[in-house]
Amino acid sequence: MTQTRTDTPFLDRIAGPADLRRLGDRELAALARELRSELISVVSETGGHLGSSLGVVELTVALHAVFNTPMDKLIWDVGHQCYPHKILTGRRDRMRTLRKKGGLSGFTKRAESAFDPFGAAHSSTSISAALGFAVGRDMGQATGDAIAVIGDGAISAGMAYEALNNAGAEGRRLFVILNDNEMSIAPPVGAMSAYLGRLYRQAPFARLAEAAESAMPAPMREGARRARQLVRGMPGAGTLFEELGFDYVGPIDGHDMGQLLPVLRAARARATGPVLIHCCTVKGKGYAPAEKSADKYHGVSTFDVTTGAQAKKAGGPPSYTSVFGKALTEEAARDPDIVAVTAAMPAGTGVSVMAERFPARVFDVGIAEQHGVTFAAGMAASGLKPFCAIYSTFLQRGFDQVVHDVAIQGLPVRFAIDRAGLVGADGVTHAGAYDVAYLTCLPGFTVMAAADEAELTHMVATAAAHDAGPIAFRYPRGAGTGVALPERGEVLQIGRGRVLQEGEDVALLSFGAQLAECLAAAKALEDEGLSVTVADARFAKPLDTGLVLRLARRHRALVTVEQGAEGGFGSVVMHALARGGAFDRGLALRTMCLPDRFIQQASPAEMYADAGLTAADIAATARGALGIADTQTVVPIPLAR
Amino acid sequence: MTQTRTDTPFLDRIAGPADLRRLGDRELAALARELRSELISVVSETGGHLGSSLGVVELTVALHAVFNTPMDKLIWDVGHQCYPHKILTGRRDRMRTLRKKGGLSGFTKRAESAFDPFGAAHSSTSISAALGFAVGRDMGQATGDAIAVIGDGAISAGMAYEALNNAGAEGRRLFVILNDNEMSIAPPVGAMSAYLGRLYRQAPFARLAEAAESAMPAPMREGARRARQLVRGMPGAGTLFEELGFDYVGPIDGHDMGQLLPVLRAARARATGPVLIHCCTVKGKGYAPAEKSADKYHGVSTFDVTTGAQAKKAGGPPSYTSVFGKALTEEAARDPDIVAVTAAMPAGTGVSVMAERFPARVFDVGIAEQHGVTFAAGMAASGLKPFCAIYSTFLQRGFDQVVHDVAIQGLPVRFAIDRAGLVGADGVTHAGAYDVAYLTCLPGFTVMAAADEAELTHMVATAAAHDAGPIAFRYPRGAGTGVALPERGEVLQIGRGRVLQEGEDVALLSFGAQLAECLAAAKALEDEGLSVTVADARFAKPLDTGLVLRLARRHRALVTVEQGAEGGFGSVVMHALARGGAFDRGLALRTMCLPDRFIQQASPAEMYADAGLTAADIAATARGALGIADTQTVVPIPLAR
Repeated sequence: MTQTRTDTPFLDRIAGPADLRRLGDRELAALARELRSELISVVSETGGHLGSSLGVVELTVALHAVFNTPMDKLIWDVGHQCYPHKILTGRRDRMRTLRKKGGLSGFTKRAESAFDPFGAAHSSTSISAALGFAVGRDMGQATGDAIAVIGDGAISAGMAYEALNNAGAEGRRLFVILNDNEMSIAPPVGAMSAYLGRLYRQAPFARLAEAAESAMPAPMREGARRARQLVRGMPGAGTLFEELGFDYVGPIDGHDMGQLLPVLRAARARATGPVLIHCCTVKGKGYAPAEKSADKYHGVSTFDVTTGAQAKKAGGPPSYTSVFGKALTEEAARDPDIVAVTAAMPAGTGVSVMAERFPARVFDVGIAEQHGVTFAAGMAASGLKPFCAIYSTFLQRGFDQVVHDVAIQGLPVRFAIDRAGLVGADGVTHAGAYDVAYLTCLPGFTVMAAADEAELTHMVATAAAHDAGPIAFRYPRGAGTGVALPERGEVLQIGRGRVLQEGEDVALLSFGAQLAECLAAAKALEDEGLSVTVADARFAKPLDTGLVLRLARRHRALVTVEQGAEGGFGSVVMHALARGGAFDRGLALRTMCLPDRFIQQASPAEMYADAGLTAADIAATARGALGIADTQTVVPIPLAR
Repeated sequence: MTQTRTDTPFLDRIAGPADLRRLGDRELAALARELRSELISVVSETGGHLGSSLGVVELTVALHAVFNTPMDKLIWDVGHQCYPHKILTGRRDRMRTLRKKGGLSGFTKRAESAFDPFGAAHSSTSISAALGFAVGRDMGQATGDAIAVIGDGAISAGMAYEALNNAGAEGRRLFVILNDNEMSIAPPVGAMSAYLGRLYRQAPFARLAEAAESAMPAPMREGARRARQLVRGMPGAGTLFEELGFDYVGPIDGHDMGQLLPVLRAARARATGPVLIHCCTVKGKGYAPAEKSADKYHGVSTFDVTTGAQAKKAGGPPSYTSVFGKALTEEAARDPDIVAVTAAMPAGTGVSVMAERFPARVFDVGIAEQHGVTFAAGMAASGLKPFCAIYSTFLQRGFDQVVHDVAIQGLPVRFAIDRAGLVGADGVTHAGAYDVAYLTCLPGFTVMAAADEAELTHMVATAAAHDAGPIAFRYPRGAGTGVALPERGEVLQIGRGRVLQEGEDVALLSFGAQLAECLAAAKALEDEGLSVTVADARFAKPLDTGLVLRLARRHRALVTVEQGAEGGFGSVVMHALARGGAFDRGLALRTMCLPDRFIQQASPAEMYADAGLTAADIAATARGALGIADTQTVVPIPLAR
């Protein structure tokens, strides 16, 4: 691929934001152009979140030029858009390590830089955090202004509203930059998005020059003549934010340094309370292939800068997500009561496949997991069969709704939990580590994990058929194992596991997609003359207690293996064993789960190696449980993934 | 106490809402008067949530008279205000069993009545659920209109905003009654509340007669003349809801049947999309002692109807909540960096004690646990020492923020988790059952539980001193055990338990306030000639692994006891035992935790008996673990609580 690196004379002189503040406005505009080209060059080599970063190039330069970072706290919501920020804050030389093992995070991260005062990755947290810093400043902590930069998608989440509501009432000096690109990951949904569109249409930039005295919020009215000429508010516009106690400025053109700099300077000079600056940007701005792309290059693989052609993913087994989307659609074709809910991730979760065929039966509620879960519960109460498709890490946002509205009422909501376990480049914040722990503790819940993509089709069919209460099935990110897919998923017997091979010395009991590693470990142990049982529990809840007690009785050692944190499957097994008195006579039980530390970004395989869950680790644990000294010279077992 | 029961000739003829629909408007007004008097009479005998129920007497009558319940789905947000609804829907004869063992729930509950289509207890779920029913109706399910009744406090939560945002965009026929009494449990906070106040002040009821054609939302403009004369909107008013896609009607007087009935009839007759009816009511309406009371009789004990005097609680040990409030205030007096966050529960959590002395350092963020947790994380990042005081069950609302903003960043937020374990009359929905499970799975978290109120003071001091990462301490609802309180809490050694008595046969390892039951069980076992160790783990995380392995090594049986669900403390202990190989040689381990079913309302002691966690249960479990046949004739051990 041809990679084009242009000269970047201004950028080359920037060691950090302090250098930026010595540049004139024209030089800052030139710097922004260089920054954009550098950004495209970097991401063409690393892949990553290009579109949103392209959209905030000018905004990033302007914010660092006007505010006194890192004493002033600049908080990027979600953090998808932080690449230009990283380049300007001393991390330019490490940008090509983005999202790689040992490299820079794809998000903001406190441990990485003083310029990242509050890390992110999940959306809509920035205003809450910024208000926390504002209080700290007012109470004498060594911190300056607090600035949250939040997108129009993220501000539609309930958490952002809670923060606006509280910040507006607190009345403290605080800056919220609404980065409105009418595009979060998927096209925007919800009434708030429509509202922001109206604000923009009422005041296109062409008329920004018709500045009116009355348009400036009160605290700024006395000064900032330049800004006043540039910002034009409309009577009645901004009402929603103003009603919540914010001064509203905008909309302004977020790619025009001639608007950004004076508006930010005026706001910084004059604000006494909370100010919302409505800044319109274009996702993918300044790179034609991105601007033309439907998803504006939200997340890209490496690409050719000249043509925009992204590296093709290698062929191979279909992803779990696509298998789910297809299986769900087939179930929906058979049962008109099946509906699906996604929280702003139709493509990511695969429900877009169903939406193509049954658009009226798929509901994208926006970034609103709390509402999404209870909305699904309401549909279930009405007699429908909702599939609520939410990543493991994001379902944490709806946990109380899962408990209070679904579990306690025993409503048959089907949870399709994608991105279970370790997820790779998105790192710690996206790990699906806790769902088994936080779901198996709930009475009446059925909790499954798919060992491979064929199992996933069975679990979709099982969930569709299961109308007796809540049911969840989890599956990992990425490609399946390549097993043959059944014509149609079969309805599994609730609470029954399966035995893949019978042995006598040690039993490996897997829950989920680490089964392949268990089978590889069994093979290695067999090569050493041991006899190994391998079972797939399928269900963490209800647990196949009969199977578990039988395995305990017939083997000297029992090893559980799962892709989740302590408190999950292994815990359920141990509770059952304790209840059954299986420990009384002695049982070398070992639980293999994610260790009690956060596993940093790398490939999923590397992360599972870091977590100690490879076939070699499993074999070593089995040997240890059997009291066989681990030979230090064992040949590493090739990774099954 | 004198109890006044007045005659209720209309009410006596109401077997259900169908009977209501045969009454004329004047009769309905008379019925409402009788309903209020019945309500006061009932709650004077049972205690409960009187104020909010008094505020919706007329609204309840009007809704059931106008809408076709139970085919139409009437969903009361939170459910505090559902007593009049219960009286009218066939439950009048059981009202005196409210909140008692085997009696009516204090909230709406699907299992209790077809007129409760969606149960509640946590706030702000009603609009989401109603939208679910509206979709079900539109997709052919046997369900009619969906009506959510939500208070001004509850609508300020993010979840309600997410639902409004989605419902406004969906555009389906749906009714939201905003019950605006400017009072949730505590006085209202937040910008939304101020906004609603402005709406009301702009259009007081006195001017409602000045009806204007333009005031009616579009779908109603063609009809409903009577309503049109009564409802007066103002130019610009209602904007926030209108911007979100709702037709806005109001504000109207929620105690005037002459306004309620025609407005509801007009809305029912004409609405094609989502309609919000802004209905102003007075909490405690129509009962002078309630109207005069600061909290409007939100939750009351039994009382004398004539005087309003509530039954005094018996003297005795202070509540855990008050001990926490006092200890927190003392720590705050010593350290100016200590701040506190509550989500609309200043009195319930005891942070009101600190607020009296340090009002600027206590933040009531409203019903906004998501924001509250991340706001606290932001304050911690700025250098402050936030105590985030949230009930166990409500912290579920902020779980993702606990994971993403606090745990992953390792920020020293202190979580004061009140109402841990079973809570009594509030029943299933308020049980603090899951916090140990959902917190101990998080790396870097410190999780403590107080065995008694003296321990709680130590844990407050420990949390204040612990600046190395997140820390949580849990404690139950209600009175402490009566132990002497220390002059000042001492800072505990992190991760160290304590041994209360040493024995040889069986070890009882307690986590939290069931310790008293363990000591009582030990005494019973000792009376049978056994030698019993009793230990208090204090920490579930980091676990005192040395202590646990020592107990396992030195005893034939080990019993863990906790006030929480599976996946919590017992699970942590078992993971440590498995890791340490303690099961290999045989260990009669038993884990005693909440059973895998929802424990229904009763007194906390009755609920723990139902859960099998009394001293007698613990003793029986210990005997079973030791292989001693349980004599069926054992004398019941008196409850320690």
